[in-house]
Amino acid sequence: MSNPTVGIMMGSKSDWEVMEAGSKILNDFGVSNEMRVLSAHRTPVECVAYVEQLSTNGAKAFICGAGLSAALPGVVAAHTQLPVIGVPLDAGSLGGMDALLSVTQMPPGVPVGGVAIGKVGAKNAALLVLRILALQDDAIRAKLEEFSAKQKQDILALQN
Amino acid sequence: MSNPTVGIMMGSKSDWEVMEAGSKILNDFGVSNEMRVLSAHRTPVECVAYVEQLSTNGAKAFICGAGLSAALPGVVAAHTQLPVIGVPLDAGSLGGMDALLSVTQMPPGVPVGGVAIGKVGAKNAALLVLRILALQDDAIRAKLEEFSAKQKQDILALQN
Amino acid sequence: MSNPTVGIMMGSKSDWEVMEAGSKILNDFGVSNEMRVLSAHRTPVECVAYVEQLSTNGAKAFICGAGLSAALPGVVAAHTQLPVIGVPLDAGSLGGMDALLSVTQMPPGVPVGGVAIGKVGAKNAALLVLRILALQDDAIRAKLEEFSAKQKQDILALQN
Amino acid sequence: MSNPTVGIMMGSKSDWEVMEAGSKILNDFGVSNEMRVLSAHRTPVECVAYVEQLSTNGAKAFICGAGLSAALPGVVAAHTQLPVIGVPLDAGSLGGMDALLSVTQMPPGVPVGGVAIGKVGAKNAALLVLRILALQDDAIRAKLEEFSAKQKQDILALQN
Amino acid sequence: MSNPTVGIMMGSKSDWEVMEAGSKILNDFGVSNEMRVLSAHRTPVECVAYVEQLSTNGAKAFICGAGLSAALPGVVAAHTQLPVIGVPLDAGSLGGMDALLSVTQMPPGVPVGGVAIGKVGAKNAALLVLRILALQDDAIRAKLEEFSAKQKQDILALQN
Amino acid sequence: MSNPTVGIMMGSKSDWEVMEAGSKILNDFGVSNEMRVLSAHRTPVECVAYVEQLSTNGAKAFICGAGLSAALPGVVAAHTQLPVIGVPLDAGSLGGMDALLSVTQMPPGVPVGGVAIGKVGAKNAALLVLRILALQDDAIRAKLEEFSAKQKQDILALQN
Amino acid sequence: MSNPTVGIMMGSKSDWEVMEAGSKILNDFGVSNEMRVLSAHRTPVECVAYVEQLSTNGAKAFICGAGLSAALPGVVAAHTQLPVIGVPLDAGSLGGMDALLSVTQMPPGVPVGGVAIGKVGAKNAALLVLRILALQDDAIRAKLEEFSAKQKQDILALQN
Amino acid sequence: MSNPTVGIMMGSKSDWEVMEAGSKILNDFGVSNEMRVLSAHRTPVECVAYVEQLSTNGAKAFICGAGLSAALPGVVAAHTQLPVIGVPLDAGSLGGMDALLSVTQMPPGVPVGGVAIGKVGAKNAALLVLRILALQDDAIRAKLEEFSAKQKQDILALQN
Repeated sequence: MSNPTVGIMMGSKSDWEVMEAGSKILNDFGVSNEMRVLSAHRTPVECVAYVEQLSTNGAKAFICGAGLSAALPGVVAAHTQLPVIGVPLDAGSLGGMDALLSVTQMPPGVPVGGVAIGKVGAKNAALLVLRILALQDDAIRAKLEEFSAKQKQDILALQN
Repeated sequence: MSNPTVGIMMGSKSDWEVMEAGSKILNDFGVSNEMRVLSAHRTPVECVAYVEQLSTNGAKAFICGAGLSAALPGVVAAHTQLPVIGVPLDAGSLGGMDALLSVTQMPPGVPVGGVAIGKVGAKNAALLVLRILALQDDAIRAKLEEFSAKQKQDILALQN
Repeated sequence: MSNPTVGIMMGSKSDWEVMEAGSKILNDFGVSNEMRVLSAHRTPVECVAYVEQLSTNGAKAFICGAGLSAALPGVVAAHTQLPVIGVPLDAGSLGGMDALLSVTQMPPGVPVGGVAIGKVGAKNAALLVLRILALQDDAIRAKLEEFSAKQKQDILALQN
Repeated sequence: MSNPTVGIMMGSKSDWEVMEAGSKILNDFGVSNEMRVLSAHRTPVECVAYVEQLSTNGAKAFICGAGLSAALPGVVAAHTQLPVIGVPLDAGSLGGMDALLSVTQMPPGVPVGGVAIGKVGAKNAALLVLRILALQDDAIRAKLEEFSAKQKQDILALQN
Repeated sequence: MSNPTVGIMMGSKSDWEVMEAGSKILNDFGVSNEMRVLSAHRTPVECVAYVEQLSTNGAKAFICGAGLSAALPGVVAAHTQLPVIGVPLDAGSLGGMDALLSVTQMPPGVPVGGVAIGKVGAKNAALLVLRILALQDDAIRAKLEEFSAKQKQDILALQN
Repeated sequence: MSNPTVGIMMGSKSDWEVMEAGSKILNDFGVSNEMRVLSAHRTPVECVAYVEQLSTNGAKAFICGAGLSAALPGVVAAHTQLPVIGVPLDAGSLGGMDALLSVTQMPPGVPVGGVAIGKVGAKNAALLVLRILALQDDAIRAKLEEFSAKQKQDILALQN
Repeated sequence: MSNPTVGIMMGSKSDWEVMEAGSKILNDFGVSNEMRVLSAHRTPVECVAYVEQLSTNGAKAFICGAGLSAALPGVVAAHTQLPVIGVPLDAGSLGGMDALLSVTQMPPGVPVGGVAIGKVGAKNAALLVLRILALQDDAIRAKLEEFSAKQKQDILALQN
Repeated sequence: MSNPTVGIMMGSKSDWEVMEAGSKILNDFGVSNEMRVLSAHRTPVECVAYVEQLSTNGAKAFICGAGLSAALPGVVAAHTQLPVIGVPLDAGSLGGMDALLSVTQMPPGVPVGGVAIGKVGAKNAALLVLRILALQDDAIRAKLEEFSAKQKQDILALQN
């Protein structure tokens, strides 16, 4: 029985590689996480069961990637009180605008925090979760400071 | 215990008047229907329970109106094998474009038939359901023919 | 003289492969269907004649794929009382947004049920028609249950 | 039996006032025209009959106003060899973007000339038709020159 | 000194191949036409001079292709009383939506008839001009009928 | 010197009422918060100083509302390691689409969690922050459960 | 004969009030400016003549407001080597998106600097011109510093 | 210590090649310029320091390229009184529409002049800066006249 700190869910196997960019960042920070393909539409019962299981087992956040009508983040948020970060994915022919609107335009009462479309969003979702976890974990906080410092140095190093 | 032929669901009380336009058409055709405010996000368990109850009790179709990220039609379609018609509603500041994309851009495997945004869509959802019911019911078929003929006459009468 | 259960129409030969994804699903369910290239704009008389012929010969639904201004589904719906499912296609440079709006934003009185842009939509159009046919056909209903179960198993099998 | 030079068609009574702005300009130029509410979807047979009647009776152009999925101009163009000008109307909640795309994104082989959304478009549709008629009619050409000159003077008069 | 019946203008050399699709149709109909790269922004004086020259020399219509902010059709229409057809081109990264809006959303008083984005539009622009010329030329009218008939046959031939 | 748990920032006095909807929810949950008008563009130094002050003084999250180009949430996220929730506001004439894109499409490395446009988003931003705070605070967690239960009851109560 | 430092042009009398917001700022800075209604489409000759006259008479910049297809800024930029700032206006039903794209998506070689839609843009156009003039005028530079300082104080004063 | 006339800033190394098109034009005109990768989000302090340094050292304008939420131009404009030209870049999956809106929809008080998306914009940004510099430098003015003349000749040379 798994008990990761972060559940990374996605609606389709084809989303795996994009969402893995977020998982890798969590791994780099030593935060346990589990990637799982579960569709709000095609496996609704298992999807809810998984959300409830992780929520009970000590998970602290969910990252949910979805394309097209992108219901997954909202459905997850409806079945947990943990913070849910939604990553709109660029599936279909509209550049991910459909997913971006579905992820962000949630009705009042059930919040999802939406990030950028695609791999950029998958990475930032992980970083946002790390900021959340850092509220309780000084080691993560310190690593985030390092991460930002390194990111800054990488850019500044370009100038020479 | 209700057993309407058509379940008309919507995510918010504020959608009632728009969706009622569809209910009225069904009433005019003598098709039993029940309007119900149930949110995929705020009452997920009751929403699914209602869908399963109606599906078991002999319902033949669902009409689901939703605005913003508009997950309702897709969630309903995930829990029934009955045809589901989605009505995107103009809530928020984007003219209903958000809901239109959520309703129509469903992933493969779980179909929703989307109609126009707002009251026009609520009416056409009812008419589409009537076309479906007419496949088994000659009286409805005949009334649809009358409806179309009257609609035609109303337009032609404008010319004089 | 053909008498398929479902007429699959499209405006251009170039739409064939996309729409075939819907035809294959109907074939898998043993539902007779006929694919036909007929344009609402370039063969308007033959288009209407075909719709009327199939409607008279026992067809139960139409699936109409169209790109750009995508008038086909609406024109078909204007000439039959059968349910019409519209599939917006990604022709041109706007990602199919033009077709999506044309297919869904039908005026009151003549309903079309719109699905997702492209091949995803072609598949879901077939599945929506199957849900409609299942209202009268327990075998199709049973196969739909199997289809959904297999689809669920395929996703769950990814986890290991 | 009418035989106007220009047929002004629209899909709904509610479009009348907007389209009248085009009719008035034609009247000012002494060009006979007839306004007619006929829907491509709700009165398809009468719509085609009217187009064919006017085309046979000496009409020289059609102006077609339509909102939402806006099939009217394309359907008219499919049934005549006369020039057809389409006026997208701002019906519904998308500001007329739906109609604009339907009017302009016609498939190859059946041309429609699209103008601006709403009353501006209705006026410009009339002026475009007048430019077409002026190719054969020096009086209209002279009046167009006067119209442009007056329009210019009206703007220049604002400066003082 | 040239005196074509139709001036085909475009803002950039890179538009040539797309606009040539319209020129070829005019050639097939035996209508003289001249293609010319002239920018409303980079060669404004020469652009206007060319428009005035052709207008004086007996031209009957202009077809103007332009991408991005696509001012060319409107500028041409401001300097002639001949009908102007605008072809929005897919330059840049917005799929031609920028050009489509510029071409169609002309202010009142100076009409442009806009067609579809890209090569489809270039073809339809030629066909719309042919419909205009056919008002005075029965041979063109007859050829248009043939064109439509052949186009119809080509589609119907696909069915076997 | 203030030390609220949550800093609620906005770029303009005119955003106050919308953002207050989020503050009220935090108040209802007994979470200290401070509303502050500070513009990333017009008071950049004071904006950064405020963010750094609160971050040092024990704040746990920021909620930033902004319209138009909506740089505020990103600028705040660049100067703190705390979680930042961005609320796109409907200023200007584009329905808030401009702000929605600015808030969500953050570059990799600096995360912002975006919520819905306008008052709905302001409320959900507060709820998302509460979910974050609940990770460390069982009383907030319990109140969130109550909030969700009451929200559910309010909807179910509509049915009778 | 006028010789203002800044020419403020607009395509329609109805744009006057919006553009006046920019004129007032220039007045406050003591920069002479002249507002003029001149349409690139309806008064093309006078429009160009005015641009050339001001450019010769010592003007240093143009501010051009336009709605719909918004050709004015680009046409002005084609006839002067002075900096041209374009203000997209919210005319019509698309919220000014049409004008925004026309103003900004200029082809290479003829630059226009576009600002926000509507009155916000008219003000910022004036401020951008003042930044340009300040390169040669220390008094304007000093006033801009004051303007920014006052703007900052106005916001900070809201906190108490 | 650098003291270029124009600072060309961009948020990411991947923007370099696009922005270089602007630098080359400035080089051709003999205007000193410096390209620098500095992110408003990842190197906020260094970004501001650089802007202040150049502003103090005699720079006359900034050109800032940015994709996605594209905060860079606005942040730069907040820290200098020099004219700032923003170049929206096509990063991500929305064709640069996100960056275009962020760059242009600046709030009142802090102006940015936005140009076209991508390389076209980078070039026009340089030309707009040259028009600004030409107000004080007759040599640049003369070269701009030459540039425009050559550009015109290049187009006219295509006709033969």
